Amino acid sequence: MGERSLEHGSFVCPVPLDQYPVVLLAHGGGGKLMHELVAKMFLASFRNPWLEARHDGAVFPLEGKRIAFTTDSYVVRPLFFPGGNIGTLAVNGTVNDLAMCGARPLYLSVGLVLEEGLPMETLWRVISSMAEAARQAGVQIVTGDTKVVDKGKGDGLFINTSGVGVIEHDLPVSPSAIQVGDAVILSGDIGRHGIAIMAARESLQFETEIESDCAPLHQLTSALFEHGVAVHCLRDLTRGGLATALLELAETSGTHIVIHEDHIAVRDDVRGACEILGLDPLYVANEGRFVAFVPAHEAERALEILGSRSTETVPAIIGEVEATPRGHVTLRSRLGTSRFLHMLSGEQLPRIC
Amino acid sequence: MGERSLEHGSFVCPVPLDQYPVVLLAHGGGGKLMHELVAKMFLASFRNPWLEARHDGAVFPLEGKRIAFTTDSYVVRPLFFPGGNIGTLAVNGTVNDLAMCGARPLYLSVGLVLEEGLPMETLWRVISSMAEAARQAGVQIVTGDTKVVDKGKGDGLFINTSGVGVIEHDLPVSPSAIQVGDAVILSGDIGRHGIAIMAARESLQFETEIESDCAPLHQLTSALFEHGVAVHCLRDLTRGGLATALLELAETSGTHIVIHEDHIAVRDDVRGACEILGLDPLYVANEGRFVAFVPAHEAERALEILGSRSTETVPAIIGEVEATPRGHVTLRSRLGTSRFLHMLSGEQLPRIC
Repeated sequence: MGERSLEHGSFVCPVPLDQYPVVLLAHGGGGKLMHELVAKMFLASFRNPWLEARHDGAVFPLEGKRIAFTTDSYVVRPLFFPGGNIGTLAVNGTVNDLAMCGARPLYLSVGLVLEEGLPMETLWRVISSMAEAARQAGVQIVTGDTKVVDKGKGDGLFINTSGVGVIEHDLPVSPSAIQVGDAVILSGDIGRHGIAIMAARESLQFETEIESDCAPLHQLTSALFEHGVAVHCLRDLTRGGLATALLELAETSGTHIVIHEDHIAVRDDVRGACEILGLDPLYVANEGRFVAFVPAHEAERALEILGSRSTETVPAIIGEVEATPRGHVTLRSRLGTSRFLHMLSGEQLPRIC
Repeated sequence: MGERSLEHGSFVCPVPLDQYPVVLLAHGGGGKLMHELVAKMFLASFRNPWLEARHDGAVFPLEGKRIAFTTDSYVVRPLFFPGGNIGTLAVNGTVNDLAMCGARPLYLSVGLVLEEGLPMETLWRVISSMAEAARQAGVQIVTGDTKVVDKGKGDGLFINTSGVGVIEHDLPVSPSAIQVGDAVILSGDIGRHGIAIMAARESLQFETEIESDCAPLHQLTSALFEHGVAVHCLRDLTRGGLATALLELAETSGTHIVIHEDHIAVRDDVRGACEILGLDPLYVANEGRFVAFVPAHEAERALEILGSRSTETVPAIIGEVEATPRGHVTLRSRLGTSRFLHMLSGEQLPRIC
């Protein structure tokens, strides 16, 4: 085993096998290790412009229209948590990835991997939640697949949802469209989903019940397009939270993103829970929040459009895009100090989606 | 627990919980139990015309074109087998589902659920096989997702692939388009995939190595359309094999399908292995075979088109569609006797795809 690189066909394994001989939980955590795996193995193998765009989905032209196509698997533990379950997450998560491509979500597929012995009642609760979430989001679940694995070879229920949507405007919404001078808008308070999962998993009791923010976002993003806001980029804040999303975007767009701590809303109970658990809310996952990059002069109008459609959250302008240092994200604190944010190796909480 | 039906929202669980309190392996086996689960729970919950068509994928109109969209999860065990691996299966399987909708496959998504501890080398072998299979099939893998679950909560590697394709002709290819008088064409010999998996799993040695028939089929189906054959329906013969596929189609189309045993090719080594293992080749899974329903007067021409493009298999007309008894499939034996085929409760071999 002196030669640790692995040849297969004409390829040589691009992930250093000495360093990472096996898959770690962190490889699925949305952080640095996952990005390395995606870039070195998946992008290198499947090389094409859609993957290289590093968007929440692929956008391709079809008969003069642009179509968005996206996929996500859901392995959240536990299956049920305050504010949602794996089924609502699977519908809204894929709806949101389409929305982040600037698309109107239309059709979803559902691929189930069930573990032998899963209570039929549990399956039913998840399936009827999915039907209800699809109804609320105005999408159709049009095709599906069911597999069952032996007891002990799964974890109750994994769901894959893929989605197809149509883009009804001419804007090239994508990470590479981010421009110096853009304002960064955050759609609401952060950190609820991760804390809700953690509380459900560890049976933690906080003073108030913290519910996941799991929700469809396309009504909000569509409103921006309908009102003619020149949106440059959209990104929802799932695994790795706000910090990881911005770091990815700064890297892909080759810009410097500056955000202001006192503009970023974190509910008191979420902040308290984060302190107890030793988590940084900037890195905690959300399932109903996104950032929008818009030209500075359109920021106030975009804020109004989002604000008038948000019932329980308040969107805010949290930062701006600068030219250098490229690929970095700076957090300006309440006290006026600045620090670079860095990608964690994985997610602080595994299996939150 | 006197009341065993489960209400959730306004729905009542449509699967009898007394009879099936938990999910069984057979619920994923492609047979009777899976059909009941799909019909009673999924179709009833997500009710829409695409699901009710009971096709290999959904076909919807977009800008004057028809688009096909399909999904499949792959949980095959072992990951590698003679003639392929989970990666080639995942690419070809979804390519084939699009082909069975009458579409030209264009774009694929990949959703990975990895188990912590999976050798990175194994992942690499699968990913580079997928890249190669996609290249051979002429499709692009344009979007993806990676999740990692804790050791002991998965089984190495599960893959979901979804796909999008475009339909470039005007034929309404679907189970409901099957007509009385249609000829049934089978594209080649049956039973290889299931036997290859079984041999790999149980370390069985046969006189010759039986390789999976795993292969993309869209070049064959496209040739039929390009030559103007009035194809009524296409179906690939995966879980549950030829018998289950025909039973599904007879039921959905409300016709009687008659097939002739001596027209159905089974290789001697496959037949021998089936005898040893107590399996009926009619029910063994294939990953590179399909049936086509075409008007009787076009059958010979279709056969020629398929035959001239098949390198190692010989397509054959194996039967015809009659009016009654509706929903039944009759097998005429070599000896002139007839019997109805029936759906098994599940797949004879679990986790073959």
